[in-house]
Amino acid sequence: MKKWLPSLITRTPQEGYELAIQLAAKGVELIQPNEQIRRKLRPKYSRDPASIIAADQVIAIHFQTVAAANNYWKGSTSRDTPQYRTK
Amino acid sequence: MKKWLPSLITRTPQEGYELAIQLAAKGVELIQPNEQIRRKLRPKYSRDPASIIAADQVIAIHFQTVAAANNYWKGSTSRDTPQYRTK
Amino acid sequence: MKKWLPSLITRTPQEGYELAIQLAAKGVELIQPNEQIRRKLRPKYSRDPASIIAADQVIAIHFQTVAAANNYWKGSTSRDTPQYRTK
Amino acid sequence: MKKWLPSLITRTPQEGYELAIQLAAKGVELIQPNEQIRRKLRPKYSRDPASIIAADQVIAIHFQTVAAANNYWKGSTSRDTPQYRTK
Amino acid sequence: MKKWLPSLITRTPQEGYELAIQLAAKGVELIQPNEQIRRKLRPKYSRDPASIIAADQVIAIHFQTVAAANNYWKGSTSRDTPQYRTK
Amino acid sequence: MKKWLPSLITRTPQEGYELAIQLAAKGVELIQPNEQIRRKLRPKYSRDPASIIAADQVIAIHFQTVAAANNYWKGSTSRDTPQYRTK
Repeated sequence: MKKWLPSLITRTPQEGYELAIQLAAKGVELIQPNEQIRRKLRPKYSRDPASIIAADQVIAIHFQTVAAANNYWKGSTSRDTPQYRTK
Repeated sequence: MKKWLPSLITRTPQEGYELAIQLAAKGVELIQPNEQIRRKLRPKYSRDPASIIAADQVIAIHFQTVAAANNYWKGSTSRDTPQYRTK
Repeated sequence: MKKWLPSLITRTPQEGYELAIQLAAKGVELIQPNEQIRRKLRPKYSRDPASIIAADQVIAIHFQTVAAANNYWKGSTSRDTPQYRTK
Repeated sequence: MKKWLPSLITRTPQEGYELAIQLAAKGVELIQPNEQIRRKLRPKYSRDPASIIAADQVIAIHFQTVAAANNYWKGSTSRDTPQYRTK
Repeated sequence: MKKWLPSLITRTPQEGYELAIQLAAKGVELIQPNEQIRRKLRPKYSRDPASIIAADQVIAIHFQTVAAANNYWKGSTSRDTPQYRTK
Repeated sequence: MKKWLPSLITRTPQEGYELAIQLAAKGVELIQPNEQIRRKLRPKYSRDPASIIAADQVIAIHFQTVAAANNYWKGSTSRDTPQYRTK
C-alpha cells in the first residue's frame, strides 16, 4: 500500500481536523476500493441527513485521536493559535 | 481553506460546548459543501428525532475532545465558573 | 447566549449524571431551537425504543466527560459517597 | 430526586459491569419516566436485535467510565480477581 | 449472579480481544435473559450487515477498555508478543 | 483459536491504521464465522452507504486504541514519519 499516513502530528488544530477527515475517508476507500462504486454512492449519501451525520461522527472520533496525539496543540501559543472566543 | 479553528482552548465550559457544535457543523459542511442542499436538508433533519439525537451525539463526542483540551476548565475557579449544583 | 454551563464540577456522581442529561438536552435544544417543534417530537420519540436508546447513549458519552472532569469523584470519601455494592 | 448513585467505585469488575447496566437503565428511566410505557416497550425492544445491540453499546460506554473510575481494578490482586484466561 | 468477570487483566492482546467479545455478549444476555429468544434472534441478526457491524462496534468499545486496563500490553516484550508487521 | 493478534505495537501510524482494520474485520468474522455467508453479505453491504460508514466508525474506534497503545507514534521522528502537512 502507498504511504498516506506518515504521522498524526499537525501544526494546527485545523490541520488536525483535516487529517481526521482524511482518516475517515481512507476507511471508506478501504472498505469499498472500487472508485466507480464510491462515486455512484456519493450523491445519494451526501443528500441523506442520516448518512451525513454518521460520517460527521466518524470524523469526530478521528479528531479525538488526532487531538490527543498533538496534546491538543496546547504548546502552540503563537499568534497562529489565539484563544478561541465566541462572538 | 479559510482559517476557522485557531485553537481548542476556550475560556469557559459553555464556550467549549459552543466550539463542539462548530466542530460538528464543520464536518457536515465539508461532507456536503453545497450550501443550498444543506439548507434543503435542514428542515427535514431538524424535525426527525433520530437525526437530532445523532447530531447531538456528534456534539457530545467533540465536547469530550474540547473538554480534555481545556483540562476540563479545572483551573478556572473564578466567579465565572461556580460549582455546578442541581436545583 | 444565556449562561447555562458554569462548570463541569459537581459534588456527587449523581449530580454529574444529571449534568450529563442537561448537556444532552442542550444539544437537542440548539439543533432544534423551536420549542413547539421539540414538544411535538417528544411524545413520538419517547415511545420509540431506538430513539430512547440513542438518547441514552448521548447521556453516557457526556457522563464520561463529566466523570473525567471530576476525577471520578475519587476524593469524596465522605458518607455521601459510600462504596457501591450490588444487592 | 432519590439517591441512586452514591459512587462509581465498586469492589470488582463484575460489580462495575452491573453498575454500568444501572447507569444505562437510569437514562432510559429519565428519558421515559412513565413506567407503564417503558413496560410496554420492553418486550418489543428486547426481541429486536438492533435495539439490543444499541443498548449493549450504552452499557459498554458506561463500563468504560466505571472501569476508569476504578483504575481498572488493577490494585485488586486478591483471590477474588484471578487473571483472566481463555479456555 | 454467578461470577463471570474476575478481572480485566489478560496475558495477551488476543485474550483481551476475546474478553471484549465476552463483555459484549454478556450485555446482550442481561438485556434479553431468555436464551430461547436469543437463539431465535441469532440467525436473523448474524446475516444482517447492519447488526453485525453494530455488534462489531460494541466489541471495539470494550476492547478499548480492556486494552487500557492492560496498559496496552506494553510490558510484554516476550516472544509471545512480537511487533506487529503488515505483510 | 489461531494466533492473530500478537501485539498492538506497530512501526508507523499507517500500519496502526491497517491493524485497526484487521481488528474490525476480526469482530465480523467472530460474529459470523461462516465465510460463505460473509461473502454473500459483502457485495450488499459494501454498496450501502450506511453500512460503509458504520464500518468506518468501527475502524475509527479501533484506531483510537491502537494509536494510544503506540503513544501516537510520538517517539518516531525518523524520516519515515515526517510532520503531516495539508497541501
